[in-house]
Amino acid sequence: MLEDKNPQLTPISQYGEFGLIKHLTENFSFRNESTEISIGDDAAVIDPQGQKVVITTDVLAEGVHFNLGYVPLKHLGYKAVAVNISDLAAMNATPTQILVSLAISNRFPVEALEEIYEGIALACERYKVDLVGGDTTSSTSGLVMSITAIGLEHSENLVGRTGAKAGDLLVVTGDLGGAYMGLQILEREHSVYLANPNMQPEMEGYDYILQRQLKPEARTDIKNTLKELGVQPTSMIDVSDGLSSEILHLSDQSKVGFRLYESKIPMDPLTMTTADELNLNPVMCALNGGEDFELLFTIPAADYDKIKNHPDFTIIGHVTPVEEGNYLVAAGSNELIALNAQGWDAFLNR
Amino acid sequence: MLEDKNPQLTPISQYGEFGLIKHLTENFSFRNESTEISIGDDAAVIDPQGQKVVITTDVLAEGVHFNLGYVPLKHLGYKAVAVNISDLAAMNATPTQILVSLAISNRFPVEALEEIYEGIALACERYKVDLVGGDTTSSTSGLVMSITAIGLEHSENLVGRTGAKAGDLLVVTGDLGGAYMGLQILEREHSVYLANPNMQPEMEGYDYILQRQLKPEARTDIKNTLKELGVQPTSMIDVSDGLSSEILHLSDQSKVGFRLYESKIPMDPLTMTTADELNLNPVMCALNGGEDFELLFTIPAADYDKIKNHPDFTIIGHVTPVEEGNYLVAAGSNELIALNAQGWDAFLNR
Repeated sequence: MLEDKNPQLTPISQYGEFGLIKHLTENFSFRNESTEISIGDDAAVIDPQGQKVVITTDVLAEGVHFNLGYVPLKHLGYKAVAVNISDLAAMNATPTQILVSLAISNRFPVEALEEIYEGIALACERYKVDLVGGDTTSSTSGLVMSITAIGLEHSENLVGRTGAKAGDLLVVTGDLGGAYMGLQILEREHSVYLANPNMQPEMEGYDYILQRQLKPEARTDIKNTLKELGVQPTSMIDVSDGLSSEILHLSDQSKVGFRLYESKIPMDPLTMTTADELNLNPVMCALNGGEDFELLFTIPAADYDKIKNHPDFTIIGHVTPVEEGNYLVAAGSNELIALNAQGWDAFLNR
Repeated sequence: MLEDKNPQLTPISQYGEFGLIKHLTENFSFRNESTEISIGDDAAVIDPQGQKVVITTDVLAEGVHFNLGYVPLKHLGYKAVAVNISDLAAMNATPTQILVSLAISNRFPVEALEEIYEGIALACERYKVDLVGGDTTSSTSGLVMSITAIGLEHSENLVGRTGAKAGDLLVVTGDLGGAYMGLQILEREHSVYLANPNMQPEMEGYDYILQRQLKPEARTDIKNTLKELGVQPTSMIDVSDGLSSEILHLSDQSKVGFRLYESKIPMDPLTMTTADELNLNPVMCALNGGEDFELLFTIPAADYDKIKNHPDFTIIGHVTPVEEGNYLVAAGSNELIALNAQGWDAFLNR
């Protein structure tokens, strides 16, 4: 599990709570002028510089959101930050600070925490955010990470979930279903390993989908791209629980319906071939798989020309009046299939 | 454990993740103009209205910070909020919003979550804060709560930990050691109960210290009191880990020493008599017990007259140059005893 196979592991108790936080965070530097006071006081202080404060929190629990049998701790730290940053990207806000809370069993050595914080540091660098606080405590079992991410943004740039209007176009970034497919490969190889620890895992050729699962990226780039194109979404959400579930959220909060075209859903060729190999329907994986962390948004139809040929975007449907409901238009037959929220749910998928 | 012994308990899976959050939070109302967008979008949006944003987070883990054998869930919800609000009070900031993250095992029914949220709602009312976000997920075992609290404040009112100067007075609010003593009683009676479930717990007469442990209050009142008295602390911290540990934090961050007078440490008579009953040294309980959530601060000596007879405050020592170290001046003998950080540490006290 640890990349450095150093047998001299350090028990967490050697540091104590304050020493541990100091040790784990002493190499973090600051990038944002808005960070005034960070770790080391009762609370952090942020100067919003005339902007609104956007704030979100997400929990990742061992055995529910990740399996340490195949998720490296450094990736876990990175991903925990990225999924929160993704929520800020979905508001069209600029990420600025994070707070990290960890409940961790004493079975983990200090070196394990160091790896998690290495991943957190990488994500802080990648997304230009400052680690300004947190709490580290023991738990009676397992590892639970809770991250709070803060962004600052001028009011007029923020995008909620309530502004979609009938006639708007439905647009998604990147491609879908890959993260779920990567998870299937990781679980398959982990089962093989558990059955026979001498078997080498067969991960070759699956790089893209494994990366989608283990090291997802938040689409913080989209904010600038849309600005350059002169497009302001009318509503936006990130695809964390599957396309179907996210469309239903926008439907619910904007009081509109959606038509989603099966033939338009963007998928990577590796997602398609792996689905084929595993006897899965790739469209179902995109609809219900989740964890792709792409952005799903609506734009006025008048903006069609601005984005139609852009490599980051795919137009996958349109908005209808609410009474027309939410449907997938099947490829070929044009049959209407009701969308339902079978998205990933931490309480059901166990 | 549940106050309402209704045998018709609801499994969490009946709601699913989104339904559950909606169900638990639908009765929360909003008190603060600064709350613009709350639960139901990718992130909450706060309008700081020209103020600085103060933010803190704390984790409470089952079996480490609380034992559900004797901590009612409603109290747990209340306390989890109060301890975070206390960190904001220690910055002299005005609390405005909270985010609540819960990782909870499927062994808990929905009714258990409802009780936790009832306690959270009570705390929101008491401290005039809005619940603006969070995440609820399952865990493979136990209950972990992570709360993030946000406050807004004008720069000039904020008090950090770095401003104490030699000659300043050391002041504490309320009384100390009670929360620790309450915990001793709870643990004693819980042991008796485990040995013989037919025994009635003997809790009578211990009300004050039990309340200090089970339903601590953040001293958000002190901000106004100090303002009315015209006193601005030079440094401040809340007493969450014990007086000794907090003094050492102020010492470390203000680069000063402290003299603490044993005879001045404020303690409730019930704390003293219970300590006597349990054969504990009450001063040690105040120094190392923690969880009193009183405020500890330094003020210029010139402000002595402003607070000397105020019922909320006790002057317990003074600030020295850093090279004079941190010492307890023993009652009677005036012997100097070095202060050390034996405060409550989640990684050691298990």
